[in-house]
Amino acid sequence: MEIKRRESHEIRVRSLAIGGENPIRVQSMTDTRTAEVASTVRQIHALANEGSELVRIAILDSKDAGAVMEIRSRLDDAGCFVPLVGDFHFDGHRLLEDHPACARVLDKYRINPGNLGFGNTHDEHFTRILDVAIANGKAIRIGANWGSLDDAVKDRLLSEHPQWPMNRLLEHAMLRSTLDSAEFALAHGLPEDRMILSAKVSHIPTLIAIYRALAARTTFPLHLGLTEAGTGDAGIIASTVAMTHLLSEGIGDTLRVSVTPGQDRGAVDPRIQEVRACQHILQANALRRFVPTLISCPGCGRTDRVQFQSFVHAIETYVVDHAADWRTRYPGSENLVIAVMGCVVNGIKEAQHADIGISLPGRGGRNPHPTLFVDGRAVGILRGANPQQEFIDRITAFLDERVSS
Amino acid sequence: MEIKRRESHEIRVRSLAIGGENPIRVQSMTDTRTAEVASTVRQIHALANEGSELVRIAILDSKDAGAVMEIRSRLDDAGCFVPLVGDFHFDGHRLLEDHPACARVLDKYRINPGNLGFGNTHDEHFTRILDVAIANGKAIRIGANWGSLDDAVKDRLLSEHPQWPMNRLLEHAMLRSTLDSAEFALAHGLPEDRMILSAKVSHIPTLIAIYRALAARTTFPLHLGLTEAGTGDAGIIASTVAMTHLLSEGIGDTLRVSVTPGQDRGAVDPRIQEVRACQHILQANALRRFVPTLISCPGCGRTDRVQFQSFVHAIETYVVDHAADWRTRYPGSENLVIAVMGCVVNGIKEAQHADIGISLPGRGGRNPHPTLFVDGRAVGILRGANPQQEFIDRITAFLDERVSS
Repeated sequence: MEIKRRESHEIRVRSLAIGGENPIRVQSMTDTRTAEVASTVRQIHALANEGSELVRIAILDSKDAGAVMEIRSRLDDAGCFVPLVGDFHFDGHRLLEDHPACARVLDKYRINPGNLGFGNTHDEHFTRILDVAIANGKAIRIGANWGSLDDAVKDRLLSEHPQWPMNRLLEHAMLRSTLDSAEFALAHGLPEDRMILSAKVSHIPTLIAIYRALAARTTFPLHLGLTEAGTGDAGIIASTVAMTHLLSEGIGDTLRVSVTPGQDRGAVDPRIQEVRACQHILQANALRRFVPTLISCPGCGRTDRVQFQSFVHAIETYVVDHAADWRTRYPGSENLVIAVMGCVVNGIKEAQHADIGISLPGRGGRNPHPTLFVDGRAVGILRGANPQQEFIDRITAFLDERVSS
Repeated sequence: MEIKRRESHEIRVRSLAIGGENPIRVQSMTDTRTAEVASTVRQIHALANEGSELVRIAILDSKDAGAVMEIRSRLDDAGCFVPLVGDFHFDGHRLLEDHPACARVLDKYRINPGNLGFGNTHDEHFTRILDVAIANGKAIRIGANWGSLDDAVKDRLLSEHPQWPMNRLLEHAMLRSTLDSAEFALAHGLPEDRMILSAKVSHIPTLIAIYRALAARTTFPLHLGLTEAGTGDAGIIASTVAMTHLLSEGIGDTLRVSVTPGQDRGAVDPRIQEVRACQHILQANALRRFVPTLISCPGCGRTDRVQFQSFVHAIETYVVDHAADWRTRYPGSENLVIAVMGCVVNGIKEAQHADIGISLPGRGGRNPHPTLFVDGRAVGILRGANPQQEFIDRITAFLDERVSS
C-alpha cells in the first residue's frame, strides 16, 4: 500500500506549507460563535494542541469580523500560532473591506463560489474579495459545496447537456464551478501559489469522481472532505472510506473530517474527535503517524469481560489523553506499539510483537495476573493490587528511557 | 468506484451462501460466556436482528460445548435461524468428538492452524476435527492469526530465508500456514465448497499484502478482518481503512469488524456497534445498503448549536433504532436519504437533494423554524412546539406512503 502522492505545488498559509512534498495537513473548524471571543479562543487553542494545523472560523457578520483581531492576539499571547482561516458566505466582500484588521489578521479566506451572488454581482463580489486577498498577500480556498452549488453554472450545463442525469450534471457543475473560479482568480492576479481547491459533496462516488478530475486537471493543492457526512460511526466510516479511496490514489494535501456528533459518542468534544479522526485516517493509511498504536482484541467468550474492558479503558484513556503532549515531549512516541490483550490465544504473540504489552490470562487461565512483555520478551507478572497503574508506570518508564526526549 | 469482485466459489453455511456472486456477508462474535445460555441466546438474537448473518461463539470447554444444543433450540424456538460458528482453539478435536450434539448443531467450525498443537500432534488434531466436519457435512474456516501463528511454519521459513526481515517472514508464514492448512484439509477429503479462509494480522499493510496473495492464489471465499484493531474511533477507522483497501480491489466475501469498546463510545452494546460498522463500511463502499443515509452537517459558528445537535440526535436515534426493523417492513427503506441541516448555507440544497429533509435557519435567520423538503420541494415550515417529532412523523408517513411495504 505504498502511496504515490499526486504532484501539486506548494502554498503557504502563515508559517504552514501545504501541498507539494509536505505532509498531508490536518485541519478543523470551530463551532462557537466567533464573536464570543473567550470560547472561540479556547476551542481554537484546544484544537491546535490536539494537532489541528489550521483552524477555520465562521465570519458571519460584523461582530464576528470585528472579533478576529482580539482572537488572534489572545492566541499569540498564549503561544498558539496556528493559522486561522475565515469562512465567508454571501457578504465576504463587504466584511473583508469593512474590517481591514480582520482581513490582515486572517491567514486564508475560504470563499464559496456558489454564495457570491448571481450574474454580474457574482463577479463583482469575487473581484472585491480577490483585491483584498492580493493586497494582504493572503491565500484563498475556492471551496465549492454541492449544498451551495452555483446555479448559473448548473443551468449553463443543463442547457448544454439536457439529457444528462442529475448526478452527472451536479458532478460536472461542481467541477466547472471550481475550475472556473480558480481561472477567474488567476486572471485577476491572485498568484498560483496562494490558492487551494475543494469541491465537497455528500455522495461518496460523486466525491471521488470530482476529486479525480480536479487532481488530473490542475496542480493546485487539494483540500479533502466529505461534506455533511452524518452522525457518529456512520459519519466517521463514510469519511474514512471516501478519504481512503482518494488518499490511496495519492490525492489530497489537507484533510478535514466533518461529522455531526452522534448518539454513539462519549464525552470527548466532537471537534477534538474530528481532529483525531483525521489523524487516525492518515495513520491507518500509513501516510503520517500521530499516536501510539494500541493493539487490543475485542474480547470474546474466552476473556473476563469486566477485567479486560476496564484494563483497556484505563490504558486507552492514558494514551489518548497524553498522545498530543508526547508528540512534543517524546518525538518518536507515535511509533510505539502497545498491546492490551484479553487472553492467551493471541495475547502472548501480539504482546511480543508490540514494544510493550500485557496479556491477560482470560477465563480458565491458572495465573490470574497479566504478563508483561517488553521488546518481545516476558519480563514479569503484574501481581500488584492495581496492575493497570503498574502497566501505565511501565509505559511511562519506557518512554523516559527509550524514546528520545 | 465500481468494484469488480474477485472470483470465488460459493460455500453454504446452514441456509447462508457465502462467496461467488453472493452479497458480502456481515458477521460478528459474542462476548458472553457461551455456557451461560440465557445471556448468550440474548446476544446472538440481538446480533442477528441487527443484521449479523453469522454469529460466532467461543467453545472453550465442555460446559460451552454442552450448551450449544440448548442455545440452538432456544434460538430456533424464537424464530432466529442465524447460522452459528464454533470458535475452537487448542482442544477443538476433543470437544467436537466428546460432544456430538455440539458438532451436529454448529454450522461451521473455525479452527486456528496455530493452535492445533505441535508437530505430529498438529496433524492428528487437525485430522480429527476434519473427520468430524466431514461426517457432519460442516464447513470449516481456516482462521490463521498472527497472534497465534504456527511456530513450525515460521521456523521452517526462517531457516529457508534467514535474511528476511521479521515483517516479511510473518507475512509469508501467515500465507503458508493458511494455504498449507487448506491443502491438508482438501487432501483429507473436506470438499472444496466447505472451506473459507482468513489470515488476520493487526498491521494494515501486512494484512493487505497477505489478502492480496490469498486472493491471487485461491478461489476460496475470504473472510476479512483486521485483528486486534484497537479501541473506539481508532479501531473503527483502522478497520475501515484496511477493509476499504481490500474491498476496493474486489477482495472479501464476508466481514467482521472487531474493535475493543472504547472511551469515546456511548451506550450502544459494542457488539451491536460492530455489526453496524460492517454495514456502514459496505454501504460507504457502495457494495450493499442497509440503513437510510442521514445527511447532516457538523454545525459551525453559523448554527444554533443546541437546537441543531438536539434535532440531529433525535432523528439519528429514530433512524438507527428503526433501521433493522425497516429493512423487513419497508424493503427499499435503506435507499432513503434524509437530511438534517443546521443553516441555510448548504441546508436548502442538501435538503432538496434528499428524499426528505429539513434545513434549520441557523444564526441570523429571520424565520426560527425548520423548513421541510420532500422530493426536492419545500412543502412547509415546521412551526409546532416539537418540530423534531413533526419531522419524525413526516418520515414515518413518507415510508408508509412511498416505500413498498
